[in-house]
Amino acid sequence: MSYIPSTELEPRVLAGDRRAVARLLTRAESGVDEARSTLDAMFSHAGRAHVVGITGVPGSGKSTLVAKLAADVRKSGRTVAIVAIDPSSPFSGGSILGDRIRMGELAGDPGVFVRSMATRGALGGLAKGTLEVVDVLDAAGFDMVIIETVGVGQDEVDVARAAHTTVVVSAPGLGDDIQAIKAGILEIADIHAVSKCDRPDANKTITDLKTMLALGLTVLDREQWSAKAGSDSTFSTRSTHVAAQSEKVEPDPTFRPEVIATSSLRDQGVAELLAAIDRHRERLERTGEIEKRRAAIAERRLLAAGEGILRDAFARNRTGRLSSLLEQLRARTLSPHAAAQRLLRELNLGGDA
Amino acid sequence: MSYIPSTELEPRVLAGDRRAVARLLTRAESGVDEARSTLDAMFSHAGRAHVVGITGVPGSGKSTLVAKLAADVRKSGRTVAIVAIDPSSPFSGGSILGDRIRMGELAGDPGVFVRSMATRGALGGLAKGTLEVVDVLDAAGFDMVIIETVGVGQDEVDVARAAHTTVVVSAPGLGDDIQAIKAGILEIADIHAVSKCDRPDANKTITDLKTMLALGLTVLDREQWSAKAGSDSTFSTRSTHVAAQSEKVEPDPTFRPEVIATSSLRDQGVAELLAAIDRHRERLERTGEIEKRRAAIAERRLLAAGEGILRDAFARNRTGRLSSLLEQLRARTLSPHAAAQRLLRELNLGGDA
Repeated sequence: MSYIPSTELEPRVLAGDRRAVARLLTRAESGVDEARSTLDAMFSHAGRAHVVGITGVPGSGKSTLVAKLAADVRKSGRTVAIVAIDPSSPFSGGSILGDRIRMGELAGDPGVFVRSMATRGALGGLAKGTLEVVDVLDAAGFDMVIIETVGVGQDEVDVARAAHTTVVVSAPGLGDDIQAIKAGILEIADIHAVSKCDRPDANKTITDLKTMLALGLTVLDREQWSAKAGSDSTFSTRSTHVAAQSEKVEPDPTFRPEVIATSSLRDQGVAELLAAIDRHRERLERTGEIEKRRAAIAERRLLAAGEGILRDAFARNRTGRLSSLLEQLRARTLSPHAAAQRLLRELNLGGDA
Repeated sequence: MSYIPSTELEPRVLAGDRRAVARLLTRAESGVDEARSTLDAMFSHAGRAHVVGITGVPGSGKSTLVAKLAADVRKSGRTVAIVAIDPSSPFSGGSILGDRIRMGELAGDPGVFVRSMATRGALGGLAKGTLEVVDVLDAAGFDMVIIETVGVGQDEVDVARAAHTTVVVSAPGLGDDIQAIKAGILEIADIHAVSKCDRPDANKTITDLKTMLALGLTVLDREQWSAKAGSDSTFSTRSTHVAAQSEKVEPDPTFRPEVIATSSLRDQGVAELLAAIDRHRERLERTGEIEKRRAAIAERRLLAAGEGILRDAFARNRTGRLSSLLEQLRARTLSPHAAAQRLLRELNLGGDA
């Protein structure tokens, strides 16, 4: 298999050629220089797909829900691509085996494309290249691109910023420690999906969520909760303060997220979830909020691209200009900040105009 | 309370004045410009403390273990500072209440200092300023600085890079999903602590860990494990491939991490854990590996400082030079990469020489 230049892949990707898409995705993920101009072209062609982030703590059943949802998207006549960056996702195991779809129902369907990302970025946040992977799938014509992430912190805020619609999956009966982590991501939800609603304790999860939303709280403070709704709730949590201080997408005060009950076991609620996702998109368009989201995403991507350029420059100069600065750092005769300033003065970060 | 210039805090911090330390930590955490030269000075005075990273999944009991360990460090005649960046830590709830120590045994002891970090960095990794917080505590004379983080991904790799000794806490009886996440952090351990060893199923956790280490595996691949040790292990996991591809600190092939059984309930194993931590430090010094660690930490810090400068420059130019670039991004007439390059050319990132 000879190397096909990325510029030659370009028209094939735009025509939806799956093999060309898969190849370009690999280059986007690994940050191949040669693919730079093609990925930039993909960005210019992208912007049509509905990008949906789906996140939830381990054990929330989100991977199964994503597979069911994708099947329903197909039934509605639309195509769908899934980007799985959740290490506990059954999709992610495929990162070494290739992009094999493990869920039977979706296998072999040309209107479905699954991409698992091998790792998160070395410096946190979304896996390196995730957003360019979304660009490629968007430019290739997929109607919906689903980004699936495990819900344990900062990455979820990044998903909220990169997606038009963010679904947070909650499940009944998870332990307190998991609940504490979860509380930090509840506020990024445009839609709440409660999974495993075949379980008797699911009602409490749904009620708690609805109460929280009715009280106008994004995340419940332990004290607030104790005062307003009793002290033994699923959503009272120590991590409230953490969440409260995180950067967040500016909320629309008139908007209240829907709570959708689902059961993958009984095949219930998935159509309702898709309908809620579609309604959210329509709402974004109707209210003009989509433009605010696009602006936030643009800013986030500009910064991420700048950081990528910085990291590449560091990697290139590792044995060169960096080494004497590192020596001074180890001797503590120069601080990291002063060393970084010196390096930034010397590196030609913006390239030639 | 009038504002005391950071340069005036400097000698007081170096003399170990707790109030001065607390004030400077707040400035380190929030990245106050005025504190820049003082924080640089702290870096030059730091380098004596033993920095210990302690990480483990939610429910592993690490926060309790950290408190017990700190008490034992004090009994050994040394002083200790704890930096809690785990949102599920009982310490972290104090970020708004101040730096109150919640664990009775440590309260009021001037040889103990607890600092909770309010949030992780907006762009992932360790909370903003974490490493400068460690510098301040180190320069203030604390013999040991413990960084406590929740064990769910990239942040743990960052801890391993920032600490001299990394302890990974495992607990018996956690669910499969938690185990899957945990597998990704096992390989960063210099020492494994197994908590809750009062439980009957703790033996299996210890045996599994020891078997894994005896087989020379850092993280068990499901297939490897099935072949070598039976198919129903705690440590078989889907996230193996993710971990295998992550960046990691270069391991010393002759080193095998110790496995320490602990029970906070029965007050067992904590002295053994501290002894193992001390042995690890002695080993680093004896073998000269400490220099490799310091080099890795220096490199990491240089890059982090560079990213900080970049983020600050973006924030400063948000309404200025950035806005026309963002407009072009939203119109998709310019790619994020091209826009970032243009911005980097225009910004004077290194400051004036």
